Amino acid sequence: MKADDISPQGASPVASADLSAVTIVVCASCRDETGSDAHPRAGAMLAADAKAAAAGDVRVATVECLGNCKRRLSAALLRDGCWSYVFGDLTPASGADLLVGAKLFAASTDGLIPWRGRPDSLKRGLVARIPPPDMLKDIA
Amino acid sequence: MKADDISPQGASPVASADLSAVTIVVCASCRDETGSDAHPRAGAMLAADAKAAAAGDVRVATVECLGNCKRRLSAALLRDGCWSYVFGDLTPASGADLLVGAKLFAASTDGLIPWRGRPDSLKRGLVARIPPPDMLKDIA
Repeated sequence: MKADDISPQGASPVASADLSAVTIVVCASCRDETGSDAHPRAGAMLAADAKAAAAGDVRVATVECLGNCKRRLSAALLRDGCWSYVFGDLTPASGADLLVGAKLFAASTDGLIPWRGRPDSLKRGLVARIPPPDMLKDIA
Repeated sequence: MKADDISPQGASPVASADLSAVTIVVCASCRDETGSDAHPRAGAMLAADAKAAAAGDVRVATVECLGNCKRRLSAALLRDGCWSYVFGDLTPASGADLLVGAKLFAASTDGLIPWRGRPDSLKRGLVARIPPPDMLKDIA
């Protein structure tokens, strides 16, 4: 997938209209591995890193807590009408990985983030995914 | 909260219109603690247990995988326009706990499942929560 990410013009292969449907959500209150209360928090640093990586192409937002404190530094990838993903075990420098994930998500046609092409951090770090209501199966 | 759950008539204090907005989503492919491939899977048993506990008051649906395999038997609680929750470390008999959580969620006025009144399994078992898009803070 990596080769597909680079067009001859160096532009993203994903239309900006698609990218606008994806949001990177970073838990800004997450601490680093020492558990320090120092500011800026590791989560706030990751949020800033993701914002810089996104360069305005993808929305980056923060939230106070994703409830994933056992897996430390956390972020979510959301796309309207698609599955929602939570990742943990990130670092303050995982912004570029989140952007790669966001672009894969934007190009997806089945509502899922493809496994192939995902940065390792978004494979090993998967914490949970939640389906959109219209992909659920009711019990007979 | 427990006392509030029982009205003089024994009926739920939560209007059925509210309950209908909540969905219990069970990962039907989750294995038990032995990792056995035997069917029915522990997840399917939990789905049936939740369905019986809900008694038609709350929608119960299944999904193939919530991506939470490290925390075993998993379920999600969803409500339109609210936070989405994923829980792990459940048992095939956690259906009643999920129903209590669903009722708390239905009665919530801030989009969150209140901590007070939650069964222990929905406190200790919290894996992640994802905010609805309109509750996100954009980075300045």
